[in-house]
Amino acid sequence: MTSNIYIGLVHHPIYDKRKEVVATAVTNFDIHDIARCAKTFGAGGFFIITPLESQIQLVERVIRHWVEGTGAVYNPTRKECFSLVRVTRTIDEADREISNLWQRRVKRVATGATPHPKSIGFEILRELLGDRDTPFLILFGTGWGLTQEVKDSSDYVLAPIEGKGYNHLSVRSAVAIILDRLLGDRMSG
Amino acid sequence: MTSNIYIGLVHHPIYDKRKEVVATAVTNFDIHDIARCAKTFGAGGFFIITPLESQIQLVERVIRHWVEGTGAVYNPTRKECFSLVRVTRTIDEADREISNLWQRRVKRVATGATPHPKSIGFEILRELLGDRDTPFLILFGTGWGLTQEVKDSSDYVLAPIEGKGYNHLSVRSAVAIILDRLLGDRMSG
Repeated sequence: MTSNIYIGLVHHPIYDKRKEVVATAVTNFDIHDIARCAKTFGAGGFFIITPLESQIQLVERVIRHWVEGTGAVYNPTRKECFSLVRVTRTIDEADREISNLWQRRVKRVATGATPHPKSIGFEILRELLGDRDTPFLILFGTGWGLTQEVKDSSDYVLAPIEGKGYNHLSVRSAVAIILDRLLGDRMSG
Repeated sequence: MTSNIYIGLVHHPIYDKRKEVVATAVTNFDIHDIARCAKTFGAGGFFIITPLESQIQLVERVIRHWVEGTGAVYNPTRKECFSLVRVTRTIDEADREISNLWQRRVKRVATGATPHPKSIGFEILRELLGDRDTPFLILFGTGWGLTQEVKDSSDYVLAPIEGKGYNHLSVRSAVAIILDRLLGDRMSG
């Protein structure tokens, strides 16, 4: 059965250090680490969202290398997880791909390192995701995070990961922890 | 109060793809991502373990850049987490540094993607770590993982992260998930 949970890694619109809205470059480690997490926790797909033509071509080349090229022979487990990776120009485009597949409205979940008035906890979102008839797109921001507008227009905003007074995880680590909390096997330990 | 939990990222002895014992090169993303996780979850220190002189010098240069150099000004939050990073040539050397500080024997915990006869679950280890008078060194293997010998000689081996039939996380993702499961705030959600 296809998973109803999709991941979106947003390279625009996001903030930079000075809180200006920018487009970041795609980081190769993000593609690999997050694709491997997506496969580990059984996500339905992983969208790399970037409007920059050069970046789209780069990511498509990386995907081809691991899915069809010499990478697929060198490391077949990488082929498996890369088959989940897609590239879209906007969040809406990723959303449309999912809603076309499901013939249903996609519920969007924004994530981030700071609280938001409509933040919900991990246990609540874990339960919501259990509605297997509804597709969910969980959005992660690169750079200094998703814009306020993306958060405000999402159906849900997930509470931040609470550290011991330090709140600066990489997006790769945040995705790993959040997928484990939302989809990981709670009985294993 | 100083945390009793230390992280060791082992570049030797570990296996390569053909199960030969090798020394891997240090990956810059590992240093950053794991240092940020260590700080987030309140670890006492993060040891990068490599016997290669060129790698030791490289890591020391990276640490200096972020703790004292221009990196410390550019990104002060990176300075904070890099102050946890140390380099040692062997696991024993990391162990000695910790036992000298604590004047106690260090308990070693090995991690890995496959089960081991003496594997213990996450909840059990979480409880053990609650003994704040005992220092723990949690070891993570780069490449294709820690050698059998390292696992056999550890006090504990942690159960693997169970995925949905896919078991190939990056070491960066594994550290993030394991620290969250062992040290994360279980009430936040």
